[in-house]
Amino acid sequence: MLPEALNDLIEALGRLPGVGPRTAERYAYFLLKSDQSIAYNLAAALSVLHDSVKNCPKTFAIMDAAEEFSPLYTDPSRDKTTVMVVEEPLDIYAIERTKSFAGTYHVLGGAISPMDGITADKLHITELIQRIADDDVDEIIIATNPSVEGESTAVLLDKLLHDKYPTLNITRLARGLPLGVSLEYADQITLTSALKNRTQL
Amino acid sequence: MLPEALNDLIEALGRLPGVGPRTAERYAYFLLKSDQSIAYNLAAALSVLHDSVKNCPKTFAIMDAAEEFSPLYTDPSRDKTTVMVVEEPLDIYAIERTKSFAGTYHVLGGAISPMDGITADKLHITELIQRIADDDVDEIIIATNPSVEGESTAVLLDKLLHDKYPTLNITRLARGLPLGVSLEYADQITLTSALKNRTQL
Repeated sequence: MLPEALNDLIEALGRLPGVGPRTAERYAYFLLKSDQSIAYNLAAALSVLHDSVKNCPKTFAIMDAAEEFSPLYTDPSRDKTTVMVVEEPLDIYAIERTKSFAGTYHVLGGAISPMDGITADKLHITELIQRIADDDVDEIIIATNPSVEGESTAVLLDKLLHDKYPTLNITRLARGLPLGVSLEYADQITLTSALKNRTQL
Repeated sequence: MLPEALNDLIEALGRLPGVGPRTAERYAYFLLKSDQSIAYNLAAALSVLHDSVKNCPKTFAIMDAAEEFSPLYTDPSRDKTTVMVVEEPLDIYAIERTKSFAGTYHVLGGAISPMDGITADKLHITELIQRIADDDVDEIIIATNPSVEGESTAVLLDKLLHDKYPTLNITRLARGLPLGVSLEYADQITLTSALKNRTQL
């Protein structure tokens, strides 16, 4: 019913996460109505994406393909002996925006989820164990997501690392009340943690 | 902080309507993680979009650039003497999906909105007046949106067309209760229309 070129675009846009047919139609029609340069710029950015970006072989963060290691690793002002372990590359930027962490990162590449076929050997755990020895790491901050998968990954990681390096300091991000959420809406686990880990005023 | 190629993509995706920085990041990261073909297909669809699609010079519907007129106009099974007037090309496909209209369409290209600089002369009204004479149109169905702008456009259009063609039958889509909305949540104008235009059971 629609012109073929528009149909192809709607189909391609519909592959994006959370984009249904109506949203894809709206995006496509917006691109059609807007100046051609908007569609061209997006096409250009998409064409070079995979060749311009790769994973850092040390931290598995995403980085410019031209670099050898991520600048978040090579920057001499960053402390290589403290490593924050995250699930996905974008988690790094959430932490970086806080400007309160000056250590380095290690991206696992997901969380353990046997249902989705993600077992421990699919994650970059071996590389993390190697890095701890190479860089004399003394603290590992586990920053997996507070989900069932993230929790299981944290528990497994803690066990593996503790067995291998008994003196290594392993910590995790605190549980507590997030800003702006009323006490009455907080879940029991969060509230229990907030009480248990209360801080001195 | 992010690799440049990824930043460029996030910026380009952020131009889409209703897409904020977080959503753009999520789309970009999905495209990076997925097979390269997904990004390539989207880039290809975007590159050809503007050259493959144009507006029908008669109905202003969008159509393949290779065609002379929209198939929704040239199809001999469609009744050229009944014309539904819509604001935007995508409105046509909402009507087409109902499979209950076999006339032709005329796209105004928007609705009157002086605040946004859209005055009556920016809409394809002159072309509609010409079409009525050329195709011996006997019914115009006004299907502008039930918004302030859509209403003003409908009123103006009714006046203009009536002055020019006093015998032309001008109708508009019915107002009433949409499926699945409880009476208690319906607004007063809708409910008044639903009562006034009640149908025989």
